[in-house]
Amino acid sequence: MERVAIIGASMTQFGQRDAWIRDLLAEAGIDCLEDAGVDPDEIEHLYVSNMASGEFEGQGGIMNGLAHDLGALPAYTERVDQTSSSGGAGIYAAWRSIASGASEMTLLVGGEKMTHRTTAEATDVIASITHPCEYKHGVTLPSFAGLTARHYLDRFDAPRESLAKVAVKNHRNGVDNPNAQFRREVDVETVLGSPVVADPLRLYDFCPITDGSAALLFCPESVAREYADEYAVIAGIDGATDTHVVHERPDPTVMSGVVESGRGAYEMSGYEPDDVDVAELHDMFTILEFLQMEGLGFAEHGEAWELVEAGYTDRDGELPINTSGGLKSKGHPLGASGVAQGVEIYEQLVGEAGPRQVEADVGLACNVGGFGNCVITTIMEAAR
Amino acid sequence: MERVAIIGASMTQFGQRDAWIRDLLAEAGIDCLEDAGVDPDEIEHLYVSNMASGEFEGQGGIMNGLAHDLGALPAYTERVDQTSSSGGAGIYAAWRSIASGASEMTLLVGGEKMTHRTTAEATDVIASITHPCEYKHGVTLPSFAGLTARHYLDRFDAPRESLAKVAVKNHRNGVDNPNAQFRREVDVETVLGSPVVADPLRLYDFCPITDGSAALLFCPESVAREYADEYAVIAGIDGATDTHVVHERPDPTVMSGVVESGRGAYEMSGYEPDDVDVAELHDMFTILEFLQMEGLGFAEHGEAWELVEAGYTDRDGELPINTSGGLKSKGHPLGASGVAQGVEIYEQLVGEAGPRQVEADVGLACNVGGFGNCVITTIMEAAR
Repeated sequence: MERVAIIGASMTQFGQRDAWIRDLLAEAGIDCLEDAGVDPDEIEHLYVSNMASGEFEGQGGIMNGLAHDLGALPAYTERVDQTSSSGGAGIYAAWRSIASGASEMTLLVGGEKMTHRTTAEATDVIASITHPCEYKHGVTLPSFAGLTARHYLDRFDAPRESLAKVAVKNHRNGVDNPNAQFRREVDVETVLGSPVVADPLRLYDFCPITDGSAALLFCPESVAREYADEYAVIAGIDGATDTHVVHERPDPTVMSGVVESGRGAYEMSGYEPDDVDVAELHDMFTILEFLQMEGLGFAEHGEAWELVEAGYTDRDGELPINTSGGLKSKGHPLGASGVAQGVEIYEQLVGEAGPRQVEADVGLACNVGGFGNCVITTIMEAAR
Repeated sequence: MERVAIIGASMTQFGQRDAWIRDLLAEAGIDCLEDAGVDPDEIEHLYVSNMASGEFEGQGGIMNGLAHDLGALPAYTERVDQTSSSGGAGIYAAWRSIASGASEMTLLVGGEKMTHRTTAEATDVIASITHPCEYKHGVTLPSFAGLTARHYLDRFDAPRESLAKVAVKNHRNGVDNPNAQFRREVDVETVLGSPVVADPLRLYDFCPITDGSAALLFCPESVAREYADEYAVIAGIDGATDTHVVHERPDPTVMSGVVESGRGAYEMSGYEPDDVDVAELHDMFTILEFLQMEGLGFAEHGEAWELVEAGYTDRDGELPINTSGGLKSKGHPLGASGVAQGVEIYEQLVGEAGPRQVEADVGLACNVGGFGNCVITTIMEAAR
């Protein structure tokens, strides 16, 4: 089967935007087509990754609206919802659209408009969608993160500072991302001195509420060569679901969706963890970066914190993680985040990452839905 | 490429159900697996077609909940949203999951829970999602249907009774569908004497508000032979989008999404309209059955009404249409409807349609989103 290539990428400014969801989607979609030099009428399939435009804005049918706004009719359109991993699910949907032969040019646009709601409202929307059972009892995603972080620190004798250093690293990376929501460095003291949200985690252990959109353009590799000298190909991709109720999981420090989707993506690609040169992990909370590093085989179980402490995941380290700034500093517009992870990996592989550029032939993105309810892992490689 | 087979099908009782969306999805999913003799842990991909569980019930993440409820972990899950054509979009998504090689056993479950809301509330939800621009001015889907019906009757000199005869036919078929919401015959006088909803259309020209769920099980044809002697294969499938704003369409009696998706499905399958032995069309309003008959090449433009008058589309006619009872009598739980169309075609092809059985080797289903905003056409053939 022919490989699936990515020939264009874009993202809007992430942050507080004076725009509604359709504006954001159109902005990223138009930029992505321009980036690749592809006309809207060449699009055969158009996927929109979005978690909750209905809940946040009372907006539906946004995929049909986007087809109109881009001038992409009569392209087939579909909205892909996999809660906070909708973006990764969109990459998987776009991959299948090409790999099945259904489309030779597929545009994926992910987006979310959130900041017109308060943080409390947005947290409620997210928890009610991703964890309806526990939410009835008042549990939200930050609650899970706090409990998991406490367990991890105690069990593996990890210093609280190691979590803070994830935030420090990702904020440092975000400074060089012109589209990041926060472009300022923070130090360990700032993180540890910020207000408690869910003990032991504090404000700077959490990603913000964000508006934004991101896009990727997919085609068969034979078509890619007509448009670009340098492009990326999807070497491996897989998704996996974990229990819908968190307490049913045997080990709170293991997200089996991460492990299973990673296993599938590695197997399909033929790569192993050591082959990965750069990774975007779903750092909605600092503790999640540890769990994904371990679930994906970048660190032994209970040892990710040591690698972070040692600078192994810094931009100039052995395995740079979240060179984009991650969800932590770049922001987390739910449906856009998985797509934006793909944008960063694509830009790293084709050498368009500017001041964030690292040497990379193989990159990985891991997008987490809910508190690990469903996870999609994508491995890309450079084609030059 | 290997063909994609369907080896199992099920639908719940449609109507007013004392259950929430997750109950309905689980009921259809479990029945479908039992129908095929497949264990839940064999499922690799699980798609849920649903339009508005958030808007109707405040429920999200239902695909992850269903994976739990079925015992299908760690199957990859995704919610497919293409408004009222989410079911057809789910068939297309399931097809791509198999055709791409990503999955060897894909379960699709479509469902919607609506009857706890009033008809007015449900109509508002649907219009606000599918036609946000016109909805601001008070236009709903029934409004479009009334305007289109008036135009059609005047332009093609069609008698008002011809529309009523669509309802009469589909109600007659529904009597023999144990899962239909309405299992009673109506006559032309009843239709024409029912209350006006959107002139010239009356209550019996419209489908009801419905709760329900339906499921289909997909695998490569080589796998299908291990499970079933008789099964169906997807011979052709395609989707297409029309303008998001209805007034931009050049001819109100032509739904280009129907035409384009039909063209794609015919081309992929090698079949022509004359080859189709049985069809399920999206008769949300009686007028839509005419538009789809014409858009899909079963009748010349402006002449579908003559075929209906002549009994051509009756169960014992040349081309039986909506043997299931259609959306009109079976009911229209939005996300379930396109899947239930597929269930009827599958049952007709494998000879499991009971008193509704017709002779059929090739069947077609056409699922319409919004007022034709996005349409998916599927052509199946029997494999015996």
